[in-house]
Amino acid sequence: TSQTNTIRATLFPGDGIGPEIAESVKQVFNAAEVPIEWEEHYVSNSVDPRTNSFLTWESLESVRRNGVGLKGPMATPIGKGHRSLNLTLRKELGLYANVRPCFSLPGYKTRYDDVDLVTIRENTEGEYSGLEHQVVRGVVESLKIITRQASLRVAEYAFHYARTNGRKRVSAIHKANIMRKTDGLFLTCCREVAEKYPDITYEEVIIDNCCMMLVKNPALFDVLVMPNLYGDIISDLCAGLIGGLGLTPSCNIGEAGIALAEAVHGSAPDIAGKNLANPTALLLSSVAMLRHLKLDDKADRIHGAILKTIAEGKHRTVDLGGKSSTTDFTNEVCDNL
Amino acid sequence: TSQTNTIRATLFPGDGIGPEIAESVKQVFNAAEVPIEWEEHYVSNSVDPRTNSFLTWESLESVRRNGVGLKGPMATPIGKGHRSLNLTLRKELGLYANVRPCFSLPGYKTRYDDVDLVTIRENTEGEYSGLEHQVVRGVVESLKIITRQASLRVAEYAFHYARTNGRKRVSAIHKANIMRKTDGLFLTCCREVAEKYPDITYEEVIIDNCCMMLVKNPALFDVLVMPNLYGDIISDLCAGLIGGLGLTPSCNIGEAGIALAEAVHGSAPDIAGKNLANPTALLLSSVAMLRHLKLDDKADRIHGAILKTIAEGKHRTVDLGGKSSTTDFTNEVCDNL
Ligand SMILES: CC(C)[C@H](C(=O)O)[C@@H](O)C(=O)O
Ligand SMILES: CC(C)[C@H](C(=O)O)[C@@H](O)C(=O)O
Repeated sequence: TSQTNTIRATLFPGDGIGPEIAESVKQVFNAAEVPIEWEEHYVSNSVDPRTNSFLTWESLESVRRNGVGLKGPMATPIGKGHRSLNLTLRKELGLYANVRPCFSLPGYKTRYDDVDLVTIRENTEGEYSGLEHQVVRGVVESLKIITRQASLRVAEYAFHYARTNGRKRVSAIHKANIMRKTDGLFLTCCREVAEKYPDITYEEVIIDNCCMMLVKNPALFDVLVMPNLYGDIISDLCAGLIGGLGLTPSCNIGEAGIALAEAVHGSAPDIAGKNLANPTALLLSSVAMLRHLKLDDKADRIHGAILKTIAEGKHRTVDLGGKSSTTDFTNEVCDNL
Repeated sequence: TSQTNTIRATLFPGDGIGPEIAESVKQVFNAAEVPIEWEEHYVSNSVDPRTNSFLTWESLESVRRNGVGLKGPMATPIGKGHRSLNLTLRKELGLYANVRPCFSLPGYKTRYDDVDLVTIRENTEGEYSGLEHQVVRGVVESLKIITRQASLRVAEYAFHYARTNGRKRVSAIHKANIMRKTDGLFLTCCREVAEKYPDITYEEVIIDNCCMMLVKNPALFDVLVMPNLYGDIISDLCAGLIGGLGLTPSCNIGEAGIALAEAVHGSAPDIAGKNLANPTALLLSSVAMLRHLKLDDKADRIHGAILKTIAEGKHRTVDLGGKSSTTDFTNEVCDNL
């Protein structure tokens, strides 16, 4: 591969099992001859005053410069006076949409075999404002902030995603019957954007009813767009339907076209370094990154190899009830390329 | 039954299918010779200025006086200048805890057959404060209020419920990793109460993780206690696991020992008056009311007859894929008493 064709991407292997599953992605990318050169950045041991976090300023600059990155699990060190790593990334990189495709994996049986949906979560405001205070002793309040700008932006992203990914329907999830003004504004923005997409069916579903419908019949849903906390809840619920966070890809879309794909599961310190981790979520996330880079051929090939490996079921990691190691699984994906 | 043994209870048949399913309860109570005399109150056609709602002042007084009631579905009439019927009841009667037992019904197959849990929802504050405003054009905020008093009260109820109902574990559901102060206060209160119940295992589960675990393995849970909105979401999710809101009982516990049991499903105007409604949720709620009145013999008998009717599957209403009428089902319950 000539140097001009090489794309630079930032890699945060992260903590715990992170480095092992990142190794898996590197191996698969090599085998598939993906023209990517990684810039690796680790979580620092000390707070960088320029970011007020354990993420270094250089690592954030790397994502900004490359416009694209992949991130393993990061455990925020305990203590005061610094920000959570995940929240720092969202804030500093303006990661406004968290996109999680969630689909039943043939060969990995759960109670559901017909899940094929995408949750799109507003990722910057809402219940995550960080604005909280004690009013008087024993009475505390927190602020949920909804803005027209962020709501339009994520709604626009959701409809655009639906159209360009052959999806037919966008459901806005809300509790506007109670939070009439905040969730009401979110819905107003979704409706405005929906007008511009007559080819996409638009509907509104109240969050409690949505959760009930999801567990009864997830096939009813296609693309779901929602404020921050609802997205947090529903994306995990959906992951549960198909087997858990170890199997679901995630990609964050940010300002200036940044895309940061990530495995959203934990860093699993108990099995770290033991070659036991399941690299599926990070592998599928790396596929999302490739799609963002319009490397669809590579993405399709790797996606197919991952699915084939899971469907065959020859190599299954411990979390899925198997006995295979991370490298067994990875080698099999490479063989299936 | 002598007059001195008769207990007065308020009955809100409600709208839509409400009167039909209320009729079902009355028939079953007669057949089981439950010593209850109903005071029936309907939703009014006009706003009562004393309640600022379509609920009359007399109907609220009736519940206060009797201390116990049963409520069918109520559709809040559309329009401005009055409060939602459900929210009015919660506020005026101080209904601080919403209790929903959720259990797999033998004979009615869903994807889950091992659900047996109880959600206990704080029902008066949190995200339902109604405090919202526009800060500047395009920026709105809503306030979530958590108080020590309401949190202690619902936590106390949950642990007491667990102990007196032979339950072993209470899980507090929260998002205190983000809402450190509000949900943090809720957890502090739960921990304080947990100290007094060494016989009950106490754990804390983050809401997104809780939803994932619930769809993967609901048998992990026993009693769940949580702030208002999380309770709204999780109780509906759990209802979905066992077949929907048409099958789940609910009881609201209020100040001064009030208990208002209710069917939480909608009023289903499309099938109203057609003898097609499933009375199960209201029947099971009436059982909860009997337990509150310590009429456990009657409660057990009616509960058993409902479960038997569902297990036999001879009479199944349309919502459950059957062809039976409300009265067919009700007659069968009476026969099974
Ligand atoms: C770790 C936590 C702060 C985070 C969130 O709540 O957003 C996580 O649950 C997620 O979904 O990425
Ligand atoms: C109808 C609505 C206001 C209500 C709520 O959100 O509390 C309902 O969902 C419930 O759970 O009783």
